Amino acid sequence: MKKHNFSAGPCILPQEVMKKASEAVLELDDIGLSLIEISHRSKEFVAIMEKARSLALELLGLEGKGYQALFLQGGASTQFLMAAYNLLENKAGYINTGTWSLKAIKEAKLMGDIVEVASSQDQNFNYIPKGYEIPAGLDYLHLTSNNTIFGTQVKEFPKTDIPLICDMSSDIFSRQLDFSQFDLIYAGAQKNMGPAGTTLVVVKEDILGKVSRTIPSMLDYKVHLGKDSMFNTPPVFPVYVSMLTLQWLKELGGIAAIEEINEKKANLIYSEIELNPVFAGFAAKEDRSIMNATFNITDESLKEEFDAKCKEAGINGINGHRSVGGYRASMYNAMSLESVGVLVDVMSELERKG
Amino acid sequence: MKKHNFSAGPCILPQEVMKKASEAVLELDDIGLSLIEISHRSKEFVAIMEKARSLALELLGLEGKGYQALFLQGGASTQFLMAAYNLLENKAGYINTGTWSLKAIKEAKLMGDIVEVASSQDQNFNYIPKGYEIPAGLDYLHLTSNNTIFGTQVKEFPKTDIPLICDMSSDIFSRQLDFSQFDLIYAGAQKNMGPAGTTLVVVKEDILGKVSRTIPSMLDYKVHLGKDSMFNTPPVFPVYVSMLTLQWLKELGGIAAIEEINEKKANLIYSEIELNPVFAGFAAKEDRSIMNATFNITDESLKEEFDAKCKEAGINGINGHRSVGGYRASMYNAMSLESVGVLVDVMSELERKG
Repeated sequence: MKKHNFSAGPCILPQEVMKKASEAVLELDDIGLSLIEISHRSKEFVAIMEKARSLALELLGLEGKGYQALFLQGGASTQFLMAAYNLLENKAGYINTGTWSLKAIKEAKLMGDIVEVASSQDQNFNYIPKGYEIPAGLDYLHLTSNNTIFGTQVKEFPKTDIPLICDMSSDIFSRQLDFSQFDLIYAGAQKNMGPAGTTLVVVKEDILGKVSRTIPSMLDYKVHLGKDSMFNTPPVFPVYVSMLTLQWLKELGGIAAIEEINEKKANLIYSEIELNPVFAGFAAKEDRSIMNATFNITDESLKEEFDAKCKEAGINGINGHRSVGGYRASMYNAMSLESVGVLVDVMSELERKG
Repeated sequence: MKKHNFSAGPCILPQEVMKKASEAVLELDDIGLSLIEISHRSKEFVAIMEKARSLALELLGLEGKGYQALFLQGGASTQFLMAAYNLLENKAGYINTGTWSLKAIKEAKLMGDIVEVASSQDQNFNYIPKGYEIPAGLDYLHLTSNNTIFGTQVKEFPKTDIPLICDMSSDIFSRQLDFSQFDLIYAGAQKNMGPAGTTLVVVKEDILGKVSRTIPSMLDYKVHLGKDSMFNTPPVFPVYVSMLTLQWLKELGGIAAIEEINEKKANLIYSEIELNPVFAGFAAKEDRSIMNATFNITDESLKEEFDAKCKEAGINGINGHRSVGGYRASMYNAMSLESVGVLVDVMSELERKG
């Protein structure tokens, strides 16, 4: 039976990418060796790393604009620390939109003063704060663009002269933005880009080198930049699969093309949530994420039937996060409109029966 | 043509492991989903992580002795920093046996005073220092068990009452040792354990929690232990392949069985190096690594022919590291005696012709 994988991450990747990745584990491009047994200094892997880095910049429209891309390890959780280690001298501002923002704030506090510029904690993070004032004297402002757990997404980013840092782990490469408004973007691969195990960092080089502390080598963006993202052995397989996924996206027509598909998927499920009285959305309408739709069942007595019908239809991974409850349908780039349709069919069937 | 992969790492892995890994990228154990698209919180992946952790302890003979195993990210390079962050309060001792020790010392210096207890730098690290005295008042003593670049290996570890930390990246699981003499062992996966992208950390729990500094979450062993090595999304594929490789080793008969094979491979190549006047070993005889044999060609006019014959025979990855020159044959656990035989045949053919 075909599975419809709504997992919040690690998550669905394009079938052709998984097929090619599977083949490369046996043998890479007819070289007689597996991808995972060759040196990371081999010409084959150096070319893979360079292609991944340049595809990332190209897709984001950041080529030739003073940015570099790195594929590091440690997830966004390591970036929470690294961003502050490299850029926080005195005081930085954070927009608190949920679990991931809170974790970023916690690590950054080890490096300096943190100002919570705005927060939606008062309503369990079901909206994105807007119209806040950015205080003077900040080294940077940090945002989380999309909140997987709560299903909210920043639609408009603040205009400011200070460096803008954005954790885009769960919506990078999903929608068109002027990415040059950011000075540092980071994203764990395991949503729209690849398997778990690598983190994309896109950094504007001229913001670096301004803090007075000594930065440990592995946490220093300049060290990684100086070694073309190969300061130490990189996570070969995750980088390779990310490269394949970025190539897939480019061939599809880039971010403009996938945004159109993503909007269709989001419109499909949010229309159902709005029209179907059995379900209620969690996130404020204007802040709803096109990646993660969060919703609750209004009639708990139908829950068992809904779960059973989902299972029957091959729907996987739609349980909500424990801090929100209910359901969460994650619809990353590789998810088809068809799969969202299958879920919406089950939802509307429940209404007719309910 | 069959390739004989002597790459120093990432390196050869068992064929059956690569086959199973390739299949899992398409579909994991008939669950209808790929290994790399399922949640790390799924029961399937939680079982994989737990199996990898327990196999590591079991193979090292450390079960029930107060140790825990973690599969982290960032390579040994991150451990250079993490070990010091977690364990260095005032002063620590390091045995300097080459490039990796030097890198470990560099990062540790950010956390406290470092005493270079012994060093073989005077002879370009071609031997392992012995008979040194360990000064009083050290928080720990750090060693590198095997030096890939120089082809040396510690055969006997110092007896001491202070915590012993060992970077075993390039020889873990290759030979029998009393692993309980160590308090912290770390090893990048990409030699004897799996693909690049995860790092095994084996830690005796009672040495933790004794430094006064605040440790960032991702660098804190206690944080990772408290979350069963799942504080954040782990590198799913590298952990899975490591689990498969550890399982392969267990089925083979564990470290005792592989040690016997490794000694045969090492004896085969070192006999040839000793008897064949065309080649000269780099490392001191008593300190030669059973993992990485380093050697030079004594008659440079034969180099071109040797390189060509190696290529003809399918021999891959034997160029020496730039800091030593010459050749390096890495013979990790998954390499067959047959492959080493192919190399030795080419070496002896050169002598007959030379």
